[in-house]
Amino acid sequence: MEEIEVAPPQENELRIKIVATGVCHTDLYHLFESMHKEGFPAVLGHEGAGYVESVGPGVTEFQPGDKVIPLFIAQCGDCRFCKNPKTNQCEKGWAADRYDVMSALDSRFTCKGKKVLQFMGTSTFSQYTVMNQMAVAKIDPDAPLDKVCLLGCGVCTGYGAAVNTAKVEPGSTCAVFGMGAVGLAAVMGCKNAGAKRIIAVDTNPEKFEKAKVFGATDFVNPKDHDKPISQVLSEMTNGGVDFSLECVGNVGVMRSALESVVKGWGVSVLVGWTDMFDISARPIQLIAGRTWKGSLFGGFKSKDGVPAMVKAYLEKKVKLDEFITHRMTLDQVNDAIELMKNGQCIRTVLSVTPQ
Amino acid sequence: MEEIEVAPPQENELRIKIVATGVCHTDLYHLFESMHKEGFPAVLGHEGAGYVESVGPGVTEFQPGDKVIPLFIAQCGDCRFCKNPKTNQCEKGWAADRYDVMSALDSRFTCKGKKVLQFMGTSTFSQYTVMNQMAVAKIDPDAPLDKVCLLGCGVCTGYGAAVNTAKVEPGSTCAVFGMGAVGLAAVMGCKNAGAKRIIAVDTNPEKFEKAKVFGATDFVNPKDHDKPISQVLSEMTNGGVDFSLECVGNVGVMRSALESVVKGWGVSVLVGWTDMFDISARPIQLIAGRTWKGSLFGGFKSKDGVPAMVKAYLEKKVKLDEFITHRMTLDQVNDAIELMKNGQCIRTVLSVTPQ
Repeated sequence: MEEIEVAPPQENELRIKIVATGVCHTDLYHLFESMHKEGFPAVLGHEGAGYVESVGPGVTEFQPGDKVIPLFIAQCGDCRFCKNPKTNQCEKGWAADRYDVMSALDSRFTCKGKKVLQFMGTSTFSQYTVMNQMAVAKIDPDAPLDKVCLLGCGVCTGYGAAVNTAKVEPGSTCAVFGMGAVGLAAVMGCKNAGAKRIIAVDTNPEKFEKAKVFGATDFVNPKDHDKPISQVLSEMTNGGVDFSLECVGNVGVMRSALESVVKGWGVSVLVGWTDMFDISARPIQLIAGRTWKGSLFGGFKSKDGVPAMVKAYLEKKVKLDEFITHRMTLDQVNDAIELMKNGQCIRTVLSVTPQ
Repeated sequence: MEEIEVAPPQENELRIKIVATGVCHTDLYHLFESMHKEGFPAVLGHEGAGYVESVGPGVTEFQPGDKVIPLFIAQCGDCRFCKNPKTNQCEKGWAADRYDVMSALDSRFTCKGKKVLQFMGTSTFSQYTVMNQMAVAKIDPDAPLDKVCLLGCGVCTGYGAAVNTAKVEPGSTCAVFGMGAVGLAAVMGCKNAGAKRIIAVDTNPEKFEKAKVFGATDFVNPKDHDKPISQVLSEMTNGGVDFSLECVGNVGVMRSALESVVKGWGVSVLVGWTDMFDISARPIQLIAGRTWKGSLFGGFKSKDGVPAMVKAYLEKKVKLDEFITHRMTLDQVNDAIELMKNGQCIRTVLSVTPQ
C-alpha cells in the first residue's frame, strides 16, 4: 500500500479533513461494473463530511474549522444551469464533461509523483481531499458528521428524486424499486410529500421491516409472483401507481418501473446510477401519457440543498440514523465494500478521523 | 367491391353523414406496417367531418343537421381520466383496450351480414359512420367541413403536442422532426406558444418552404451532415434545444429527438404513432435531466378541444388551408394513399358527400 500525497489548496480551493464517509453503491459500480480504464487510478468515496483544514487565497466563503460536506456536483451559481430553477446540473466540475469516467482529472492527489484521479470530484475515502469551493456545502456546526455524511449522496439522491424530480403529490400512490439506502430515502421522500400508499419492491423480504420505518405501506417481492411486477402493481392499484422510482440501477427494472405507472399521468424516475446499457420501452408507454425522467443528486442544487437537508435532519424532519447498519474505520473499507456487494448492509459509515 | 351496410344508431349513438375526410399516415400504418390481422376487415379513415344524420333514443346533446367531427378518442366526462386535468386518455372506447389492433369491435358496419370493424372507432372513409355521442364533437355551424376535418387528427395532434404536452415556453428553442402535417402543426404550435427559434428537421429539402409558412426559422436536413443530427442541433443551439417533437413515428428518430434536447430541462415528446419496436436510450440522457413524454391527439380532451380549435381556425389563430395540397373524391382514396406513401403530399382531403 502506497501513501497518497494531498497537495495544499490552490486559488478557490479548500483542503478538507474528512471525518466520516458512507460507502455507496456507486463506488462499487465504478470499481466492479463500469471499470472505465480512464477512471483509474482514483481515490474512491463520495459521501463524506469533515472540517475545512486550510483554504486557498481566493476563498472567502469558508474558514478553517467550518463543518462541510463535499459535493459531487458543483453549484457555481453563475452558469445558465445554476440560474435556472428547473435543474441542478451545474456545467462546472467533472460531471459536466467526464461523467463517463466519473472522475476529475485535475486532482491534488499524487502517489510517488504520479497523478491519482479524484473519483466523482470528491474522493472521501481519504484523510484529506481538496475541493473547489463551488462544490462544498457549509453546514450547521451542530451537525454530527458521522451521520450527515449520508447527505453527500444516497439520502439526498433518493429523497430528492421523490420530492424534487417526481414531485410526488399528497394522496398519491407510489412504488419504489430497490430498498437500499437510496430507495429507502425515496420512500421517506414519498411519505414526507404526503403519499397515501407507498409500495416497496425488493427481492429481499428482509428489507420490508426497514422500509416500514421510512413509511412504506406495502411490500412486493417480485419473486413471489409469476406475472410481471408491473402487472402485479397494476392489479393492486387499479391500473398502476401515480409515481415510480427506480433505485436499483438496472435497465430491466427501469422498464418495469415505467410500465408500473398509470397511463395518463404516471411519472417514472430513474434514480439508480447505471450507464452501461440502453433503457427501452414500447412507444405506447409514453404515448399513453406516462412521463420518463431521471434524477441526479435528487435534483437538489447542491450547495443550497445539502445545508437545508442537514437542518431538516436536526429538526427531525428527515431520518438518517436509521440508514446506518454498520460502523467501521477507513482501514476496513474493503470489508465494507464486501458487505455492500453481498447486500448485507444498508449503509456502512467509515470513521476516517475521530470527530 | 362490396357494399358496406351501416345500421341505424342505437341508444347513445349518432349516425354521421361524412362530408370530407383527410388521409393520415396512421391509416397507412395500419394498412401497410402494423397489419394486425385482428384489425381487419375494417373501414379506414379517422380525420373526418360531417353532419348528424340521425340520433339514437338516448341522445340529448345532438340534433340532425349539427356539424360534427368524429373523435378517435372519447371524452365520456365521467371516468377518472376525464376528471383529471392532466390527461385526455378517457378510459372508454376502443383506445382503452384495443389500441394494439386499432379498431372497435362493436361497429355498425356489415358486409353481406359479416361484421366490418371500425378503424380507430371512427371509419371516415365512408358516406356514413355510427359513433357514440361521447366521441363526437359538435362544432361551429360556420365551419367549412372540408377544412376543419383536419382537426380530427393531424393538426390537433401536432399542435397540441407542442402547446399541451411539451408546454413550449415563450423564448424557447424547439426542434420538430418530420415535416408532414403533424410536424407542420407542431411547428405552428411552437410558434403560437412563443418559441423564438424553431428548427425543422426533414430529409426532404422541399419541405422547408412549407415549414416557414407555419413558423420554422431554421431547416436541417440530416443527409447534409456526417455527424449525428443530435450533435448538429447541439452545436447550433449551445448544447441542445429546449423542446423536441418527434412527428415521424420512427424509434430511431425518437432517440435522436431525445438526444437533441439540452440537459437539465429539455423535454422530448413522441408524437408520431408507432408501436412495433422499442424506443431506447442511454440512462444518462434522462439522469442528466431530460424528460421523455408522449402525446396522443395532442393531449386535447377531445370533445372540449376540437370545437375550441375550430373556433381558433375561424378566428384565424391557427392555419388549416395551408396543409391541404390535394383534393380528391372518396373513390380516389387509393390514389390519395399512394401520394402519401410516396411523400408527395402534406394532406389530401377527400370529398365524400358534396357539402
